[in-house]
Amino acid sequence: MNNRNLYLDMKPVEEAKNIFLSALNLERIRQVEAIASKDASGRVTAEAVFAKFSSPMFNASAMDGIAVISAHTAQASTTRPVVLKEGVDFIVVDTGDPVHAPYDAVIMAEDTVETPDGIRIVDSIAPWENIRPIGEDIVAGEMILTGHHQIRPVDVGVLLSAGITEVVVRKKPTVAIFPTGTEIIEPTDTPAEGSILESNSRMFESMVNNQGGIAVRYPILKDEYEVIRDAVANAALNHDMVIINAGSSAGREDFTVHVLRELGQVLVHGVAIKPGKPVILAIVQGKPVIGLPGYPVSAYVGFINFVSPVLSLLSDVQIQSQTMVDAIMTRRLVSSLKHKEYVRVKVGEVGGRIIAAPLTRGAGAAMSLVRADGFCIIDQNSEGVEAGETVSVLLTGDPAAITRTLVVIGSHDMMLDILADMMPVQYKNMHLSSTHVGSLGGIMALQRGETHLAPIHLLDEETGHYNIPFIQKHFKEPMALIKGVGRIQGILVKKGNPLNVSTIEDLKGLRYVNRQRGAGTRMLLDYELKKRNISPEEIKGYELEATTHMAVAALVGSDGADAGLGILAAASAMNLDFIPVGQEEYDFALPVEYLELPYVKAFIELIKSVAFQQKMDQLGGYSFKNIGEVYRF
Amino acid sequence: MNNRNLYLDMKPVEEAKNIFLSALNLERIRQVEAIASKDASGRVTAEAVFAKFSSPMFNASAMDGIAVISAHTAQASTTRPVVLKEGVDFIVVDTGDPVHAPYDAVIMAEDTVETPDGIRIVDSIAPWENIRPIGEDIVAGEMILTGHHQIRPVDVGVLLSAGITEVVVRKKPTVAIFPTGTEIIEPTDTPAEGSILESNSRMFESMVNNQGGIAVRYPILKDEYEVIRDAVANAALNHDMVIINAGSSAGREDFTVHVLRELGQVLVHGVAIKPGKPVILAIVQGKPVIGLPGYPVSAYVGFINFVSPVLSLLSDVQIQSQTMVDAIMTRRLVSSLKHKEYVRVKVGEVGGRIIAAPLTRGAGAAMSLVRADGFCIIDQNSEGVEAGETVSVLLTGDPAAITRTLVVIGSHDMMLDILADMMPVQYKNMHLSSTHVGSLGGIMALQRGETHLAPIHLLDEETGHYNIPFIQKHFKEPMALIKGVGRIQGILVKKGNPLNVSTIEDLKGLRYVNRQRGAGTRMLLDYELKKRNISPEEIKGYELEATTHMAVAALVGSDGADAGLGILAAASAMNLDFIPVGQEEYDFALPVEYLELPYVKAFIELIKSVAFQQKMDQLGGYSFKNIGEVYRF
Repeated sequence: MNNRNLYLDMKPVEEAKNIFLSALNLERIRQVEAIASKDASGRVTAEAVFAKFSSPMFNASAMDGIAVISAHTAQASTTRPVVLKEGVDFIVVDTGDPVHAPYDAVIMAEDTVETPDGIRIVDSIAPWENIRPIGEDIVAGEMILTGHHQIRPVDVGVLLSAGITEVVVRKKPTVAIFPTGTEIIEPTDTPAEGSILESNSRMFESMVNNQGGIAVRYPILKDEYEVIRDAVANAALNHDMVIINAGSSAGREDFTVHVLRELGQVLVHGVAIKPGKPVILAIVQGKPVIGLPGYPVSAYVGFINFVSPVLSLLSDVQIQSQTMVDAIMTRRLVSSLKHKEYVRVKVGEVGGRIIAAPLTRGAGAAMSLVRADGFCIIDQNSEGVEAGETVSVLLTGDPAAITRTLVVIGSHDMMLDILADMMPVQYKNMHLSSTHVGSLGGIMALQRGETHLAPIHLLDEETGHYNIPFIQKHFKEPMALIKGVGRIQGILVKKGNPLNVSTIEDLKGLRYVNRQRGAGTRMLLDYELKKRNISPEEIKGYELEATTHMAVAALVGSDGADAGLGILAAASAMNLDFIPVGQEEYDFALPVEYLELPYVKAFIELIKSVAFQQKMDQLGGYSFKNIGEVYRF
Repeated sequence: MNNRNLYLDMKPVEEAKNIFLSALNLERIRQVEAIASKDASGRVTAEAVFAKFSSPMFNASAMDGIAVISAHTAQASTTRPVVLKEGVDFIVVDTGDPVHAPYDAVIMAEDTVETPDGIRIVDSIAPWENIRPIGEDIVAGEMILTGHHQIRPVDVGVLLSAGITEVVVRKKPTVAIFPTGTEIIEPTDTPAEGSILESNSRMFESMVNNQGGIAVRYPILKDEYEVIRDAVANAALNHDMVIINAGSSAGREDFTVHVLRELGQVLVHGVAIKPGKPVILAIVQGKPVIGLPGYPVSAYVGFINFVSPVLSLLSDVQIQSQTMVDAIMTRRLVSSLKHKEYVRVKVGEVGGRIIAAPLTRGAGAAMSLVRADGFCIIDQNSEGVEAGETVSVLLTGDPAAITRTLVVIGSHDMMLDILADMMPVQYKNMHLSSTHVGSLGGIMALQRGETHLAPIHLLDEETGHYNIPFIQKHFKEPMALIKGVGRIQGILVKKGNPLNVSTIEDLKGLRYVNRQRGAGTRMLLDYELKKRNISPEEIKGYELEATTHMAVAALVGSDGADAGLGILAAASAMNLDFIPVGQEEYDFALPVEYLELPYVKAFIELIKSVAFQQKMDQLGGYSFKNIGEVYRF
């Protein structure tokens, strides 16, 4: 238990950032370079750019037609046409051709008639008409771009038109990235027990490159003091910035902070942010060195709060201002005054209101970053958010997609993933977004107006019927049910069924893994236990909750549990044995009026399609009787 | 006059696009490839991606601490602590370490006390507490990304965490780009009379690369039928798409449409769009071939309307949905029913209203694309927009910048460009945006509440005073004037003054270039002419209007005119001789209340600064007496 840095001095986020930024002298690091203008898109001008040539470079015809001496046309009219002679009164010009004295105007081709004697015109023309004077677009010497300007494709065009073939831009800062950790392996290596696949450094790499830097990712460093010290010392000499991943918390082998104290100055160790607390902000050889935590969400939140602002100052690439939307928070979120918190949320528009549903808050939940539409940022001096409260959400995706998304909250089935994949392909600009809170959670989301559809598989203990009794019991308003799939539920056990499980009774004495409260599968277990007069206390592990069929299967597969209830598809995916318990009905509840929504219509079409049912058949254990039929109550 | 394609069959934009897209069979062109996941950021998944491994891959400690057998802790309390023995009751674990049976929970280090006998705890722990079960984040077999998904940095992280080291993505389409035209030269070549610097292809190149394609830009093709034919035929075999620039209108040397008719099928020639009319949409060897016009704005508008949608279908990269804002149009815009029109506008927030000021509508005005904040798109079935009407503007820049921008409309001086360059550097997040409509135009913009500041240099013929009489005459509300610079105005003539100009009288008989109506410099000429009883008709070229000092200088320098009135800085920039006429006062009018705006305060500080005045001194001809002083009326 020695060698732990137990107590971090937690600084508020803004204070930590200000301490770091004001201690850095970035001017000493920033450099400029001259590059070809044609390759300059995305780069940032180091100084204002002035035109070398005018555009047009000469007085030019703005039309295809004839360049004339305007005075020779003065008498022309419909009643008294004038005939002009080539080489005397006019020359033929195309758009862009130079026009010289004595020619001083251009008549467009459409307004001329060819005759044997020459070109006949029926209207006079004023001097300079249809001529683009030199410098009409760009005048030599004028400022065409300011400094600190990120060059766009249209700017590249103007630079070249103005004769600027080389432009002085900010040099891209290089950022060294070090993954560290003895247990960390390359994803291309074969994992052993206890191995963790290294992934954060590649996420950082992409983020650095997207924000105007050049990422240089080094091989994984073992948790050895000298190894980390020498690598960082060397990187601080050769790069503009250094990121060290993991080793920033207070664990036994977390050397980073000691290394940085030896090599330079540690300004901040520990920030009041969640996830992301164990951030280290240091300066080595005048270069910013940032230690980021190992959990993927912590790493991401640490990056956007501390790496991005420094990188933006170095690269001069502005951090894109993200869209904020006001949304109604679906659940109460309690947050500590100890930190600012980044809560990942799904965002959808239901019944004219924008809704934010929080995802799991765990720092290790990388999938929550993938699934999130944005962040609800809870300030350090706030104790949280009440359900129904309007919050500001920082969107990470396309704001326009929100209004084109079918929101599905309730029980999870793999058909939802398959539909999310198929929907935008079959129906342009339509998306399906699902959040998994179990069947009863779905019913409640529907009651609160937070979802379009609630996927449910709820067995009524009295009638033995699925779903419809629950809808009738929970809603007064007109509701509908879209028939989904029939699913075989069963007991998942290890391959070969080593413990010889054949009925629900056999679960007694085994290490069971349950589903969360409100999940249909948990209710099925309760129903089966009750039928047999078995008390939940007799099931060891009844309190261990997994939130999806796949999570149950994974626990059984890894010997974290002996058995769990779930669907055939999950058993097949994890190569488990499956003892059928019965077929259940997995359907979709919704308010009647949502049947008119275009994406609900698309949804019904899609689940009726052969293409969808073929994909489901590959998973196994599904039936499609009456699928897509609609019942109203 | 032979060989012209005078009559194009103009199709409405949407119809043209639909004809083209439905004739293309892009499925035959699209390809996929497997790439390393670590390099996949920005690429688009070709199919749904399923996790190979779970994450965590084993039941893992979520804390630094000790892994315990939860049953051994059941009796612990503050009054009856329990002492655990290493290797018997617990093992030490760091975050991420595997936890195996018999250990089934983790107590965090902070909740333990080391004693000589072992670790003392004062609280029991439940099974599975502080353990991340296998698959908590990602379960092997689950869908982690849908198909058609553009991979973000967080997705790269999750792919690798899930053991997916290679991912199948849409192959980037390659797009051949051909600049054509006998008069077109590379910007790196030395221009001769009549040369046009090639720039559009480089703009296209950047746009193609930004939209998920790979641009392959070929050398400039001469306007020769066989040359163009052979190049296009070859490119259609080797690339996924072909862009031919220029040669798409009806000029004498515009072979493109004939070439494309020989090689394949021309579906559309001419679109009802302005600028951008002479677009060609064709198919050669099954590949989309698009002819775009030569004028830079036409080329840009043609690209976003026809190349972008096809490229997006080929690359599967969504065209980023752009922000629309409602804005009040400052001027009447008449538009023909013959076409949809893209009007470039400057957008600013003045007095709480969002204002859109149209820029020049010329197809050749590439600088208007650079200067624009967005487009006001006038539908084909609209005859235009009235001044004061609310319009929808498609923003091309950062929406957040609008509210942080000092709007300046009026007379142009180079000090505005210098200030636009300095402002965001000296004052974070503040910008200066100027539109040049002459002094009187500025006064009118101020009256209509469209600008914060109006830069003016207006000589009152009666009093001989500058600016203040005009403000007092035009405004009833409380106004202010910020003193700007003193500027020497004079007659610009060619180097060596070959026509021996020395006074305003000498302008008679010369080819003069005037400024636009409402320009202070034009009013100065009128004042000087009136003093001398010279009628405007005696000045040849009085009706030839340039809109900036630099444009006047360029015309004189290129022998488009013999003389013009302007400032010393313009004469120096174009290497002209300068005959001083007098010093004028270039000041800034504004409503008194705008003096409180943060960017007006910043503006005053900035023009008073030594750094600014040093830059102005380099231009020459300026004086700074009382600069930054504020007068109120």
